Amino acid sequence: MTDIAMIEAARQRMNGEAIRTPLMSSPFLDEIAGRKVLIKPECLQRTGSFKFRGGWSAVSALEPEVRKRGVIAFSSGNHAQGVALAASLHGVPAVIIMPRDAPKIKIENTRAYGAEVVLYDRANEDRDAIGATLSEERGLTLIRPYDEPLVIAGQGTVGLEIAEQAQEAGIEKAEVLVCCGGGGLTSGVALALEAKAPGLKVRTAEPEHFDDVARSLASGKIERNAALSGSICDAIITPQPGNITFPILKRLCGAGIAVTEEEALRAMVLAFQRLKIVVEPGGAVALAAALFHGNELETDSVIAVASGGNVDSAIMADALSKYA
Amino acid sequence: MTDIAMIEAARQRMNGEAIRTPLMSSPFLDEIAGRKVLIKPECLQRTGSFKFRGGWSAVSALEPEVRKRGVIAFSSGNHAQGVALAASLHGVPAVIIMPRDAPKIKIENTRAYGAEVVLYDRANEDRDAIGATLSEERGLTLIRPYDEPLVIAGQGTVGLEIAEQAQEAGIEKAEVLVCCGGGGLTSGVALALEAKAPGLKVRTAEPEHFDDVARSLASGKIERNAALSGSICDAIITPQPGNITFPILKRLCGAGIAVTEEEALRAMVLAFQRLKIVVEPGGAVALAAALFHGNELETDSVIAVASGGNVDSAIMADALSKYA
Repeated sequence: MTDIAMIEAARQRMNGEAIRTPLMSSPFLDEIAGRKVLIKPECLQRTGSFKFRGGWSAVSALEPEVRKRGVIAFSSGNHAQGVALAASLHGVPAVIIMPRDAPKIKIENTRAYGAEVVLYDRANEDRDAIGATLSEERGLTLIRPYDEPLVIAGQGTVGLEIAEQAQEAGIEKAEVLVCCGGGGLTSGVALALEAKAPGLKVRTAEPEHFDDVARSLASGKIERNAALSGSICDAIITPQPGNITFPILKRLCGAGIAVTEEEALRAMVLAFQRLKIVVEPGGAVALAAALFHGNELETDSVIAVASGGNVDSAIMADALSKYA
Repeated sequence: MTDIAMIEAARQRMNGEAIRTPLMSSPFLDEIAGRKVLIKPECLQRTGSFKFRGGWSAVSALEPEVRKRGVIAFSSGNHAQGVALAASLHGVPAVIIMPRDAPKIKIENTRAYGAEVVLYDRANEDRDAIGATLSEERGLTLIRPYDEPLVIAGQGTVGLEIAEQAQEAGIEKAEVLVCCGGGGLTSGVALALEAKAPGLKVRTAEPEHFDDVARSLASGKIERNAALSGSICDAIITPQPGNITFPILKRLCGAGIAVTEEEALRAMVLAFQRLKIVVEPGGAVALAAALFHGNELETDSVIAVASGGNVDSAIMADALSKYA
């Protein structure tokens, strides 16, 4: 199981390969939120999302003999790119299983990072079964997107940085809003903050109608989403919280927050205008929660993770025309 | 005159107020350029450009008695915002003189940072005369956008960071491409690199038809632009290099590079797609030089400063529809 020592070991193995993203702010966003808002822009991470951290953590921890046979992953896109680049930088093959309806730019990018992409139908095919078969045939190591302790440890390095940067900014008490799909980033950050900055409490952010984590936190047991597609926040749509991640979330996180698609798109546009960062809708739900759900927040300062930036340019252009 | 001690003193006075922007890269950009390209994204700096550094440096260095009367600046927008926020954070008034045709977002932002904005006509009015009169009337200290040693020292902190980050990345020899208007950023970076990383050589980047610096470097004396407006790269259009900055540029910089407007817009779109950063056209000319003017470059690695991100969203949406 992931603990603070594993997270610190993951950071050691990264050794400068991941960007230490800054903590950003804007008086314009503070005014909208009615409180101090700090943003951790993991969209600026290599491959455009925090997923590079988990991918690197998992690939770098493999025994060389095992690693050289290659790795396999399934992902709506960001984990795909993270694992693909991590494998490529280690000089080993990567096979990525992606849903056929993933944004085109994510499929193209994954291929461009040198991975072999296998497409599947999100509604009718079982990605786990496809992954298991391919792993066995080729001797590939499966790198799960969130229910994998080494991946959680890699994502937890975001939490180590937040703990340090909050301290530098003089912030001892704050809610840390994290865009939550399967819970890998959220659980990693929560574990890091538990050890390093206990005054910082994690809250999850999700799109409405896909708020399995918020409902699971409320009921105390794993709840599923009714639909598995149909959200513009594709990056963070998962059937349910992970079996490994959920107990961590349950122990360490406050109540979950669900935002509308329009709120996510408005947050994306505000991040463009005020922070000069490109955030995808699913990566903007935590900022949307910070800006538009103040009545559900308790602290004077909040820290929102902008988790990814792999948005199709047509979606951004459309949102700019509507909300800028 | 600005020297390395002044630049280091400026960094001391900043004391965490400015973001230490990361050094970014993308294999996609390396492939286009045919060499390693590192990007210093100062568009992520507070107020959306490096100008906050110079503004902070100048305001923070004033005697308290002088500072409390307030400051005045003229600017097409980015210097305006940098000085406005620096003054606001010091709790002193700022008057900003801006051209009437500056992008609307820059005028609005400058007002929102608490400054009083005075508009003038770029073609028919003398901004220096307006500034001098107002300074005298109210006892304001004029903060020039580039021909001011304390401002150059503040911008030079970008160079200190580049020197450190290039060393961390194992890069000893590279050309450092800097978007150049009046030469404040360029001369500050050049002075910092001369002292801290002599293997890094500064090259200037400008839009074609407004390449006064490149022509001045070629002839060895200050040359003027024929036009003073009409470029989409509004942020870096100045009549001529500064009297203080030009001797520094002449001593330390290689030949200047001029890029087309289309190249600047394409670089802006590639920065959006591949780095997830929002760069304005004038802030993208150095990246454009790195990507599209390889035949004018000499080193295997280049570092391009993305100097500002205050672009109107309509311009970005239009560029995305054309070039993404």
